[in-house]
Amino acid sequence: MKVAFLGPSGTFSEEVLNKIYKKDIKKIPYKTITDVVKALIHNEVDYSVVPIENSTEGCVTETLDTIIENKDIEIKEQYILKIKHNLLAKKQYKLKDIKEIYSHPQALAQCRNFIEENLKDINIYETTSTAESAKIVKEKEYTACIANTTCKEVYNLELLKENIQDNNNNETRFWVLGKNIKNKKENIMTIIFTTKDKPGALYQVLGIFDKYNLNLTKIESRPAKTKLGEYYFWIDIDIKDKSYNKALIELQNSVRLLRILGKY
Amino acid sequence: MKVAFLGPSGTFSEEVLNKIYKKDIKKIPYKTITDVVKALIHNEVDYSVVPIENSTEGCVTETLDTIIENKDIEIKEQYILKIKHNLLAKKQYKLKDIKEIYSHPQALAQCRNFIEENLKDINIYETTSTAESAKIVKEKEYTACIANTTCKEVYNLELLKENIQDNNNNETRFWVLGKNIKNKKENIMTIIFTTKDKPGALYQVLGIFDKYNLNLTKIESRPAKTKLGEYYFWIDIDIKDKSYNKALIELQNSVRLLRILGKY
Repeated sequence: MKVAFLGPSGTFSEEVLNKIYKKDIKKIPYKTITDVVKALIHNEVDYSVVPIENSTEGCVTETLDTIIENKDIEIKEQYILKIKHNLLAKKQYKLKDIKEIYSHPQALAQCRNFIEENLKDINIYETTSTAESAKIVKEKEYTACIANTTCKEVYNLELLKENIQDNNNNETRFWVLGKNIKNKKENIMTIIFTTKDKPGALYQVLGIFDKYNLNLTKIESRPAKTKLGEYYFWIDIDIKDKSYNKALIELQNSVRLLRILGKY
Repeated sequence: MKVAFLGPSGTFSEEVLNKIYKKDIKKIPYKTITDVVKALIHNEVDYSVVPIENSTEGCVTETLDTIIENKDIEIKEQYILKIKHNLLAKKQYKLKDIKEIYSHPQALAQCRNFIEENLKDINIYETTSTAESAKIVKEKEYTACIANTTCKEVYNLELLKENIQDNNNNETRFWVLGKNIKNKKENIMTIIFTTKDKPGALYQVLGIFDKYNLNLTKIESRPAKTKLGEYYFWIDIDIKDKSYNKALIELQNSVRLLRILGKY
Protein backbone atom coordinates (compact mmCIF):
# COMPACT_ATOMS: atom_id res chain seq x y z
CA MET A 1 0.00 0.00 0.00
CA LYS A 2 1.32 3.43 -1.01
CA VAL A 3 0.42 6.64 0.84
CA ALA A 4 1.27 10.19 -0.34
CA PHE A 5 2.12 12.97 2.12
CA LEU A 6 3.57 16.49 2.11
CA GLY A 7 7.33 16.05 2.36
CA PRO A 8 10.20 16.15 2.97
CA SER A 9 10.60 14.03 6.08
CA GLY A 10 9.52 15.73 9.31
CA THR A 11 6.25 17.44 8.35
CA PHE A 12 3.07 17.37 10.45
CA SER A 13 1.51 15.33 7.62
CA GLU A 14 4.16 12.65 8.16
CA GLU A 15 3.41 12.66 11.92
CA VAL A 16 -0.23 11.92 11.12
CA LEU A 17 0.71 9.22 8.65
CA ASN A 18 2.89 7.52 11.31
CA LYS A 19 0.03 7.65 13.80
CA ILE A 20 -2.58 6.16 11.47
CA TYR A 21 -0.48 3.53 9.69
CA LYS A 22 1.78 1.26 11.69
CA LYS A 23 4.12 -0.19 9.10
CA ASP A 24 4.08 -2.23 5.89
CA ILE A 25 3.21 0.87 3.92
CA LYS A 26 5.27 2.82 1.47
CA LYS A 27 5.34 6.52 2.41
CA ILE A 28 5.82 8.75 -0.64
CA PRO A 29 6.67 12.42 -0.10
CA TYR A 30 5.43 15.13 -2.50
CA LYS A 31 6.46 18.78 -2.71
CA THR A 32 3.09 20.53 -2.43
CA ILE A 33 -0.36 19.67 -1.06
CA THR A 34 -1.72 19.93 -4.59
CA ASP A 35 0.83 17.31 -5.69
CA VAL A 36 -0.23 15.05 -2.78
CA VAL A 37 -3.85 15.13 -4.01
CA LYS A 38 -2.79 14.76 -7.66
CA ALA A 39 -0.77 11.63 -6.80
CA LEU A 40 -4.08 10.03 -5.85
CA ILE A 41 -5.89 11.33 -8.93
CA HIS A 42 -3.19 9.83 -11.16
CA ASN A 43 -3.26 6.53 -9.27
CA GLU A 44 0.36 6.83 -8.14
CA VAL A 45 -0.79 6.01 -4.58
CA ASP A 46 -3.70 4.32 -2.79
CA TYR A 47 -4.26 7.09 -0.25
CA SER A 48 -3.23 10.70 0.38
CA VAL A 49 -2.89 12.42 3.77
CA VAL A 50 -3.74 16.15 3.67
CA PRO A 51 -4.27 18.96 6.22
CA ILE A 52 -7.77 20.40 5.79
CA GLU A 53 -8.37 22.95 8.56
CA ASN A 54 -6.60 24.58 11.45
CA SER A 55 -8.23 25.97 14.60
CA THR A 56 -6.39 29.31 14.30
CA GLU A 57 -6.17 29.86 10.55
CA GLY A 58 -9.25 28.03 9.29
CA CYS A 59 -9.61 26.08 6.10
CA VAL A 60 -6.43 25.03 4.23
CA THR A 61 -7.73 26.55 1.00
CA GLU A 62 -5.22 24.80 -1.27
CA THR A 63 -6.45 21.37 -0.08
CA LEU A 64 -10.16 22.05 -0.30
CA ASP A 65 -9.95 23.72 -3.72
CA THR A 66 -7.96 20.80 -5.17
CA ILE A 67 -10.39 18.21 -3.77
CA ILE A 68 -13.44 20.07 -5.09
CA GLU A 69 -12.03 20.12 -8.62
CA ASN A 70 -11.63 16.32 -8.64
CA LYS A 71 -14.86 14.41 -8.46
CA ASP A 72 -13.73 10.84 -7.74
CA ILE A 73 -11.88 11.64 -4.54
CA GLU A 74 -13.47 10.60 -1.25
CA ILE A 75 -12.64 11.06 2.42
CA LYS A 76 -11.70 7.79 4.10
CA GLU A 77 -11.04 9.04 7.62
CA GLN A 78 -9.95 12.06 9.66
CA TYR A 79 -7.25 12.68 12.25
CA ILE A 80 -6.89 15.72 14.54
CA LEU A 81 -3.33 16.62 15.50
CA LYS A 82 -2.29 19.04 18.25
CA ILE A 83 0.10 21.54 16.59
CA LYS A 84 3.02 23.08 18.43
CA HIS A 85 5.38 25.34 16.50
CA ASN A 86 8.98 26.12 17.38
CA LEU A 87 11.58 28.55 16.16
CA LEU A 88 14.59 26.46 15.12
CA ALA A 89 18.09 27.48 14.02
CA LYS A 90 21.61 26.12 13.82
CA LYS A 91 23.26 25.91 17.22
CA GLN A 92 25.62 28.86 16.78
CA TYR A 93 22.72 31.38 16.51
CA LYS A 94 20.71 33.30 19.10
CA LEU A 95 17.40 35.06 18.42
CA LYS A 96 19.15 38.43 17.87
CA ASP A 97 21.38 36.94 15.12
CA ILE A 98 18.49 35.86 12.92
CA LYS A 99 18.02 37.83 9.69
CA GLU A 100 15.53 35.66 7.82
CA ILE A 101 12.80 33.20 8.79
CA TYR A 102 11.32 30.45 6.66
CA SER A 103 8.16 28.39 6.95
CA HIS A 104 4.95 27.18 5.32
CA PRO A 105 2.34 30.00 4.95
CA GLN A 106 -0.05 28.20 7.37
CA ALA A 107 2.65 27.98 10.08
CA LEU A 108 3.62 31.64 9.52
CA ALA A 109 -0.04 32.64 9.88
CA GLN A 110 -0.46 30.56 13.06
CA CYS A 111 2.50 32.41 14.64
CA ARG A 112 1.63 35.89 13.33
CA ASN A 113 1.60 37.60 16.77
CA PHE A 114 4.88 36.00 17.79
CA ILE A 115 6.56 37.17 14.57
CA GLU A 116 5.04 40.64 14.91
CA GLU A 117 6.37 41.02 18.47
CA ASN A 118 9.74 39.25 18.30
CA LEU A 119 10.92 39.38 14.70
CA LYS A 120 9.62 42.76 13.63
CA ASP A 121 12.08 43.77 10.90
CA ILE A 122 13.05 40.40 9.60
CA ASN A 123 12.49 38.94 6.13
CA ILE A 124 9.86 36.22 5.95
CA TYR A 125 10.13 33.50 3.30
CA GLU A 126 7.36 31.12 2.31
CA THR A 127 8.26 27.45 1.82
CA THR A 128 6.29 24.47 0.54
CA SER A 129 6.32 22.76 3.96
CA THR A 130 7.63 23.27 7.49
CA ALA A 131 10.18 20.47 6.98
CA GLU A 132 11.37 22.13 3.77
CA SER A 133 12.03 25.30 5.79
CA ALA A 134 14.13 23.27 8.28
CA LYS A 135 16.11 21.83 5.37
CA ILE A 136 16.84 25.36 4.07
CA VAL A 137 17.86 26.65 7.52
CA LYS A 138 20.29 23.76 7.86
CA GLU A 139 22.10 25.08 4.76
CA LYS A 140 21.81 28.85 5.24
CA GLU A 141 23.53 31.17 7.73
CA TYR A 142 21.66 33.61 10.04
CA THR A 143 18.28 32.01 9.37
CA ALA A 144 15.56 30.32 11.45
CA CYS A 145 12.50 28.26 10.58
CA ILE A 146 9.12 27.54 12.17
CA ALA A 147 8.61 23.79 12.44
CA ASN A 148 7.84 20.89 14.80
CA THR A 149 10.30 19.15 17.14
CA THR A 150 10.63 16.23 14.70
CA CYS A 151 12.37 18.65 12.32
CA LYS A 152 14.73 19.64 15.13
CA GLU A 153 15.90 16.00 15.26
CA VAL A 154 15.78 15.22 11.53
CA TYR A 155 17.72 18.34 10.48
CA ASN A 156 19.89 18.59 13.60
CA LEU A 157 18.75 22.08 14.61
CA GLU A 158 18.43 23.77 18.02
CA LEU A 159 15.37 25.24 19.75
CA LEU A 160 15.52 29.04 19.76
CA LYS A 161 12.03 29.28 21.22
CA GLU A 162 9.35 26.65 21.74
CA ASN A 163 5.55 26.84 21.54
CA ILE A 164 5.41 30.02 19.52
CA GLN A 165 1.91 29.43 18.08
CA ASP A 166 -0.45 32.34 18.87
CA ASN A 167 -3.06 30.03 20.33
CA ASN A 168 -2.27 27.20 22.70
CA ASN A 169 -5.28 25.17 21.57
CA ASN A 170 -3.80 25.10 18.09
CA GLU A 171 -4.84 21.91 16.26
CA THR A 172 -5.08 20.79 12.65
CA ARG A 173 -7.56 18.37 11.14
CA PHE A 174 -6.25 16.00 8.48
CA TRP A 175 -8.13 13.84 5.99
CA VAL A 176 -7.01 10.55 4.47
CA LEU A 177 -8.30 10.65 0.90
CA GLY A 178 -8.92 7.66 -1.37
CA LYS A 179 -11.02 6.37 -4.26
CA ASN A 180 -13.83 3.78 -4.33
CA ILE A 181 -13.75 3.40 -0.57
CA LYS A 182 -15.46 0.31 0.79
CA ASN A 183 -16.78 -0.28 4.35
CA LYS A 184 -17.52 3.36 4.97
CA LYS A 185 -18.00 4.39 8.56
CA GLU A 186 -21.06 6.50 9.32
CA ASN A 187 -20.05 9.10 11.91
CA ILE A 188 -19.63 12.23 9.81
CA MET A 189 -20.84 13.06 6.31
CA THR A 190 -19.06 15.94 4.57
CA ILE A 191 -20.88 17.72 1.77
CA ILE A 192 -20.16 20.73 -0.43
CA PHE A 193 -22.92 22.72 -2.10
CA THR A 194 -23.70 26.03 -3.76
CA THR A 195 -27.05 27.66 -3.09
CA LYS A 196 -29.50 28.96 -5.64
CA ASP A 197 -29.11 32.67 -6.25
CA LYS A 198 -32.06 34.00 -4.22
CA PRO A 199 -32.59 35.61 -0.81
CA GLY A 200 -32.81 33.16 2.09
CA ALA A 201 -31.35 30.25 0.07
CA LEU A 202 -28.92 29.17 2.80
CA TYR A 203 -31.65 29.50 5.44
CA GLN A 204 -33.86 27.15 3.42
CA VAL A 205 -31.08 24.58 3.07
CA LEU A 206 -30.29 24.64 6.80
CA GLY A 207 -34.02 24.14 7.42
CA ILE A 208 -33.78 20.70 5.80
CA PHE A 209 -31.19 19.54 8.36
CA ASP A 210 -33.28 21.04 11.16
CA LYS A 211 -36.39 19.18 9.95
CA TYR A 212 -34.60 15.82 10.12
CA ASN A 213 -32.84 16.63 13.41
CA LEU A 214 -29.42 16.38 11.81
CA ASN A 215 -26.76 18.26 13.74
CA LEU A 216 -24.16 20.21 11.75
CA THR A 217 -20.73 20.03 13.35
CA LYS A 218 -19.20 22.43 10.86
CA ILE A 219 -20.27 25.05 8.37
CA GLU A 220 -17.80 27.06 6.36
CA SER A 221 -18.08 29.19 3.25
CA ARG A 222 -15.48 29.49 0.49
CA PRO A 223 -15.55 31.86 -2.47
CA ALA A 224 -16.84 30.13 -5.60
CA LYS A 225 -14.02 31.93 -7.51
CA THR A 226 -16.50 33.38 -9.96
CA LYS A 227 -17.21 36.77 -8.38
CA LEU A 228 -17.39 38.37 -4.95
CA GLY A 229 -20.49 37.28 -3.06
CA GLU A 230 -20.73 33.81 -4.62
CA TYR A 231 -19.83 30.96 -2.33
CA TYR A 232 -19.94 27.29 -1.85
CA PHE A 233 -20.61 25.89 1.58
CA TRP A 234 -18.79 23.05 3.27
CA ILE A 235 -20.89 21.28 5.90
CA ASP A 236 -20.12 18.34 8.21
CA ILE A 237 -23.20 16.45 9.39
CA ASP A 238 -23.32 14.17 12.42
CA ILE A 239 -24.89 11.00 10.92
CA LYS A 240 -24.16 8.60 13.78
CA ASP A 241 -27.33 6.51 14.30
CA LYS A 242 -29.27 8.97 12.15
CA SER A 243 -31.22 8.56 8.97
CA TYR A 244 -30.09 11.11 6.43
CA ASN A 245 -31.34 9.77 3.11
CA LYS A 246 -34.56 11.79 3.01
CA ALA A 247 -32.63 14.93 3.88
CA LEU A 248 -30.21 14.26 1.00
CA ILE A 249 -33.09 13.91 -1.46
CA GLU A 250 -34.63 17.22 -0.34
CA LEU A 251 -31.22 18.83 -0.43
CA GLN A 252 -30.68 17.79 -4.04
CA ASN A 253 -33.77 19.76 -5.00
CA SER A 254 -32.81 22.85 -3.01
CA VAL A 255 -29.20 23.47 -4.00
CA ARG A 256 -27.50 24.23 -7.29
CA LEU A 257 -24.60 21.85 -6.98
CA LEU A 258 -24.07 19.08 -4.43
CA ARG A 259 -21.06 16.87 -3.77
CA ILE A 260 -20.79 14.27 -1.04
CA LEU A 261 -17.10 14.18 -0.14
CA GLY A 262 -17.37 11.20 2.16
CA LYS A 263 -18.91 9.28 5.04
CA TYR A 264 -16.34 8.42 7.67
CA MET B 1 -6.62 64.41 6.98
CA LYS B 2 -4.30 61.44 7.37
CA VAL B 3 -4.99 58.04 5.81
CA ALA B 4 -2.99 54.84 6.48
CA PHE B 5 -2.41 52.25 3.75
CA LEU B 6 -0.27 49.16 3.13
CA GLY B 7 2.98 50.48 1.65
CA PRO B 8 5.41 51.00 0.09
CA SER B 9 4.22 53.04 -2.88
CA GLY B 10 2.53 50.99 -5.63
CA THR B 11 0.27 48.61 -3.69
CA PHE B 12 -3.35 47.86 -4.59
CA SER B 13 -4.28 49.60 -1.30
CA GLU B 14 -2.70 52.81 -2.60
CA GLU B 15 -4.64 52.45 -5.88
CA VAL B 16 -7.86 52.34 -3.86
CA LEU B 17 -6.80 55.30 -1.76
CA ASN B 18 -6.11 57.33 -4.91
CA LYS B 19 -9.52 56.44 -6.29
CA ILE B 20 -11.44 57.37 -3.13
CA TYR B 21 -9.55 60.50 -2.09
CA LYS B 22 -8.72 63.13 -4.66
CA LYS B 23 -6.07 65.25 -2.96
CA ASP B 24 -5.47 67.30 0.18
CA ILE B 25 -4.85 64.17 2.19
CA LYS B 26 -1.68 62.86 3.72
CA LYS B 27 -1.07 59.24 2.66
CA ILE B 28 0.92 57.33 5.27
CA PRO B 29 2.37 53.92 4.30
CA TYR B 30 2.69 51.11 6.88
CA LYS B 31 4.56 47.83 6.57
CA THR B 32 1.79 45.31 7.38
CA ILE B 33 -2.01 45.30 7.30
CA THR B 34 -1.98 44.86 11.08
CA ASP B 35 0.09 48.06 11.35
CA VAL B 36 -2.38 49.88 9.08
CA VAL B 37 -5.24 49.00 11.46
CA LYS B 38 -3.13 49.77 14.54
CA ALA B 39 -2.30 53.24 13.19
CA LEU B 40 -6.02 53.98 13.48
CA ILE B 41 -6.30 52.42 16.94
CA HIS B 42 -3.43 54.59 18.18
CA ASN B 43 -4.92 57.72 16.57
CA GLU B 44 -1.94 58.23 14.26
CA VAL B 45 -4.38 58.59 11.33
CA ASP B 46 -8.04 59.48 10.72
CA TYR B 47 -8.77 56.56 8.40
CA SER B 48 -7.21 53.28 7.30
CA VAL B 49 -7.65 51.55 3.94
CA VAL B 50 -7.53 47.73 4.17
CA PRO B 51 -8.22 44.77 1.84
CA ILE B 52 -10.92 42.58 3.36
CA GLU B 53 -11.82 39.84 0.88
CA ASN B 54 -10.81 38.55 -2.51
CA SER B 55 -13.02 36.69 -4.96
CA THR B 56 -10.47 33.87 -5.45
CA GLU B 57 -8.86 33.55 -2.04
CA GLY B 58 -11.67 34.67 0.28
CA CYS B 59 -11.36 36.63 3.49
CA VAL B 60 -8.08 38.45 4.20
CA THR B 61 -7.82 36.81 7.61
CA GLU B 62 -5.17 39.19 8.95
CA THR B 63 -7.48 42.19 8.41
CA LEU B 64 -10.63 40.66 9.85
CA ASP B 65 -8.89 39.23 12.90
CA THR B 66 -7.26 42.60 13.72
CA ILE B 67 -10.55 44.48 13.36
CA ILE B 68 -12.43 42.02 15.55
CA GLU B 69 -9.94 42.45 18.39
CA ASN B 70 -10.45 46.24 18.41
CA LYS B 71 -13.91 47.32 19.42
CA ASP B 72 -13.95 51.03 18.51
CA ILE B 73 -13.16 50.54 14.84
CA GLU B 74 -15.99 51.04 12.35
CA ILE B 75 -16.39 50.63 8.59
CA LYS B 76 -16.87 53.96 6.82
CA GLU B 77 -17.16 52.76 3.24
CA GLN B 78 -16.17 50.00 0.83
CA TYR B 79 -14.45 49.91 -2.55
CA ILE B 80 -14.20 46.96 -4.94
CA LEU B 81 -11.07 46.87 -7.10
CA LYS B 82 -10.50 44.64 -10.15
CA ILE B 83 -7.19 42.84 -9.49
CA LYS B 84 -4.78 41.95 -12.29
CA HIS B 85 -1.45 40.40 -11.37
CA ASN B 86 1.71 40.45 -13.47
CA LEU B 87 5.08 38.75 -13.31
CA LEU B 88 7.67 41.54 -13.27
CA ALA B 89 11.47 41.41 -13.47
CA LYS B 90 14.43 43.56 -14.44
CA LYS B 91 14.71 44.02 -18.18
CA GLN B 92 17.70 41.71 -18.72
CA TYR B 93 15.75 38.62 -17.59
CA LYS B 94 13.50 36.15 -19.39
CA LEU B 95 11.11 33.69 -17.67
CA LYS B 96 13.68 30.85 -17.91
CA ASP B 97 16.31 32.94 -16.02
CA ILE B 98 14.16 33.41 -12.93
CA LYS B 99 15.33 31.52 -9.84
CA GLU B 100 13.18 33.12 -7.11
CA ILE B 101 9.78 34.81 -6.99
CA TYR B 102 8.53 37.24 -4.36
CA SER B 103 5.06 38.49 -3.48
CA HIS B 104 2.42 38.98 -0.79
CA PRO B 105 0.81 35.65 0.31
CA GLN B 106 -2.61 36.72 -1.07
CA ALA B 107 -1.13 37.47 -4.51
CA LEU B 108 0.81 34.17 -4.49
CA ALA B 109 -2.41 32.32 -3.62
CA GLN B 110 -4.36 34.10 -6.38
CA CYS B 111 -1.77 32.95 -8.94
CA ARG B 112 -1.29 29.41 -7.56
CA ASN B 113 -2.10 27.61 -10.85
CA PHE B 114 0.18 29.89 -12.87
CA ILE B 115 3.06 29.27 -10.47
CA GLU B 116 2.39 25.53 -10.41
CA GLU B 117 2.46 25.32 -14.21
CA ASN B 118 5.18 27.83 -15.14
CA LEU B 119 7.52 28.14 -12.18
CA LYS B 120 7.51 24.60 -10.88
CA ASP B 121 10.89 24.29 -9.17
CA ILE B 122 11.44 27.85 -8.15
CA ASN B 123 11.78 29.29 -4.64
CA ILE B 124 8.79 31.32 -3.45
CA TYR B 125 9.30 34.14 -0.94
CA GLU B 126 6.55 35.84 1.04
CA THR B 127 6.68 39.62 1.34
CA THR B 128 4.61 42.12 3.34
CA SER B 129 3.09 43.65 0.19
CA THR B 130 3.18 43.31 -3.59
CA ALA B 131 5.03 46.64 -3.88
CA GLU B 132 7.59 45.45 -1.32
CA SER B 133 8.26 42.44 -3.58
CA ALA B 134 8.84 44.80 -6.55
CA LYS B 135 11.31 46.79 -4.43
CA ILE B 136 13.23 43.58 -3.62
CA VAL B 137 13.29 42.42 -7.27
CA LYS B 138 14.71 45.79 -8.30
CA GLU B 139 17.72 45.04 -6.04
CA LYS B 140 18.17 41.31 -6.54
CA GLU B 141 19.42 39.36 -9.58
CA TYR B 142 17.52 36.46 -11.22
CA THR B 143 14.28 37.25 -9.37
CA ALA B 144 10.71 38.16 -10.32
CA CYS B 145 7.73 39.48 -8.38
CA ILE B 146 3.95 39.33 -8.67
CA ALA B 147 2.51 42.84 -8.60
CA ASN B 148 0.33 45.38 -10.43
CA THR B 149 1.36 47.55 -13.40
CA THR B 150 1.82 50.56 -11.09
CA CYS B 151 4.78 48.71 -9.56
CA LYS B 152 6.20 48.19 -13.04
CA GLU B 153 6.38 51.98 -13.41
CA VAL B 154 7.35 52.88 -9.82
CA TYR B 155 10.21 50.33 -9.65
CA ASN B 156 11.16 50.48 -13.32
CA LEU B 157 10.62 46.78 -14.04
CA GLU B 158 9.54 44.92 -17.18
CA LEU B 159 6.52 42.72 -17.83
CA LEU B 160 7.54 39.04 -18.06
CA LYS B 161 3.92 37.94 -18.25
CA GLU B 162 0.70 39.85 -17.72
CA ASN B 163 -2.67 38.78 -16.22
CA ILE B 164 -1.35 35.73 -14.42
CA GLN B 165 -4.18 35.55 -11.84
CA ASP B 166 -5.91 32.14 -11.89
CA ASN B 167 -9.33 33.70 -12.29
CA ASN B 168 -10.09 36.53 -14.67
CA ASN B 169 -12.90 37.84 -12.49
CA ASN B 170 -10.39 38.43 -9.71
CA GLU B 171 -11.47 41.34 -7.52
CA THR B 172 -10.71 42.53 -3.99
CA ARG B 173 -13.03 44.37 -1.64
CA PHE B 174 -11.48 47.09 0.53
CA TRP B 175 -12.84 48.85 3.59
CA VAL B 176 -12.07 52.36 4.77
CA LEU B 177 -12.01 52.11 8.56
CA GLY B 178 -12.49 54.97 11.04
CA LYS B 179 -13.73 55.84 14.52
CA ASN B 180 -16.89 57.71 15.65
CA ILE B 181 -18.17 57.94 12.10
CA LYS B 182 -20.96 60.48 11.54
CA ASN B 183 -23.48 60.60 8.67
CA LYS B 184 -23.52 56.87 8.18
CA LYS B 185 -24.94 55.61 4.94
CA GLU B 186 -27.48 52.82 5.16
CA ASN B 187 -26.83 50.42 2.30
CA ILE B 188 -24.99 47.58 3.99
CA MET B 189 -24.71 46.63 7.64
CA THR B 190 -21.82 44.33 8.54
CA ILE B 191 -22.10 42.29 11.73
CA ILE B 192 -19.98 39.62 13.41
CA PHE B 193 -21.46 37.10 15.84
CA THR B 194 -20.81 33.79 17.52
CA THR B 195 -23.70 31.37 17.96
CA LYS B 196 -24.78 29.66 21.16
CA ASP B 197 -23.35 26.15 21.41
CA LYS B 198 -26.42 24.10 20.47
CA PRO B 199 -27.69 22.27 17.38
CA GLY B 200 -29.43 24.49 14.84
CA ALA B 201 -28.13 27.73 16.36
CA LEU B 202 -27.10 29.25 13.02
CA TYR B 203 -30.39 28.17 11.45
CA GLN B 204 -32.27 30.02 14.21
CA VAL B 205 -30.22 33.17 13.70
CA LEU B 206 -30.76 33.14 9.92
CA GLY B 207 -34.48 32.73 10.65
CA ILE B 208 -34.51 36.20 12.22
CA PHE B 209 -33.31 37.81 8.98
CA ASP B 210 -35.81 35.75 7.00
CA LYS B 211 -38.67 36.88 9.29
CA TYR B 212 -37.88 40.56 8.66
CA ASN B 213 -37.21 40.04 4.93
CA LEU B 214 -33.61 41.16 5.27
CA ASN B 215 -31.41 39.88 2.47
CA LEU B 216 -27.91 38.67 3.37
CA THR B 217 -25.38 39.60 0.69
CA LYS B 218 -22.57 37.73 2.41
CA ILE B 219 -22.08 35.04 5.01
CA GLU B 220 -18.67 33.74 5.97
CA SER B 221 -17.36 31.74 8.89
CA ARG B 222 -13.99 32.16 10.59
CA PRO B 223 -12.49 29.94 13.29
CA ALA B 224 -13.01 31.48 16.75
CA LYS B 225 -9.37 30.46 17.51
CA THR B 226 -10.46 28.56 20.60
CA LYS B 227 -10.86 25.05 19.21
CA LEU B 228 -11.80 23.30 15.97
CA GLY B 229 -15.53 23.56 15.30
CA GLU B 230 -16.03 26.94 17.00
CA TYR B 231 -16.63 29.84 14.65
CA TYR B 232 -17.75 33.36 14.39
CA PHE B 233 -19.87 34.42 11.45
CA TRP B 234 -19.48 37.55 9.39
CA ILE B 235 -22.68 38.68 7.71
CA ASP B 236 -23.47 41.60 5.40
CA ILE B 237 -27.13 42.66 5.42
CA ASP B 238 -28.80 44.71 2.70
CA ILE B 239 -30.46 47.49 4.78
CA LYS B 240 -31.32 49.87 1.94
CA ASP B 241 -34.86 51.13 2.65
CA LYS B 242 -35.33 48.36 5.20
CA SER B 243 -36.12 48.42 8.87
CA TYR B 244 -33.62 46.32 10.77
CA ASN B 245 -33.94 47.49 14.38
CA LYS B 246 -36.35 44.78 15.48
CA ALA B 247 -34.15 42.15 13.88
CA LEU B 248 -31.13 43.49 15.78
CA ILE B 249 -32.99 43.24 19.10
CA GLU B 250 -34.02 39.63 18.43
CA LEU B 251 -30.50 38.88 17.27
CA GLN B 252 -29.01 40.15 20.51
CA ASN B 253 -31.03 37.53 22.40
CA SER B 254 -30.10 34.68 20.05
CA VAL B 255 -26.35 34.97 19.73
CA ARG B 256 -23.51 34.77 22.21
CA LEU B 257 -21.53 37.75 21.04
CA LEU B 258 -22.57 40.46 18.58
CA ARG B 259 -20.59 43.30 17.02
CA ILE B 260 -21.88 45.77 14.47
CA LEU B 261 -18.85 46.68 12.38
CA GLY B 262 -20.57 49.42 10.45
CA LYS B 263 -23.40 50.80 8.33
CA TYR B 264 -22.15 52.13 5.02
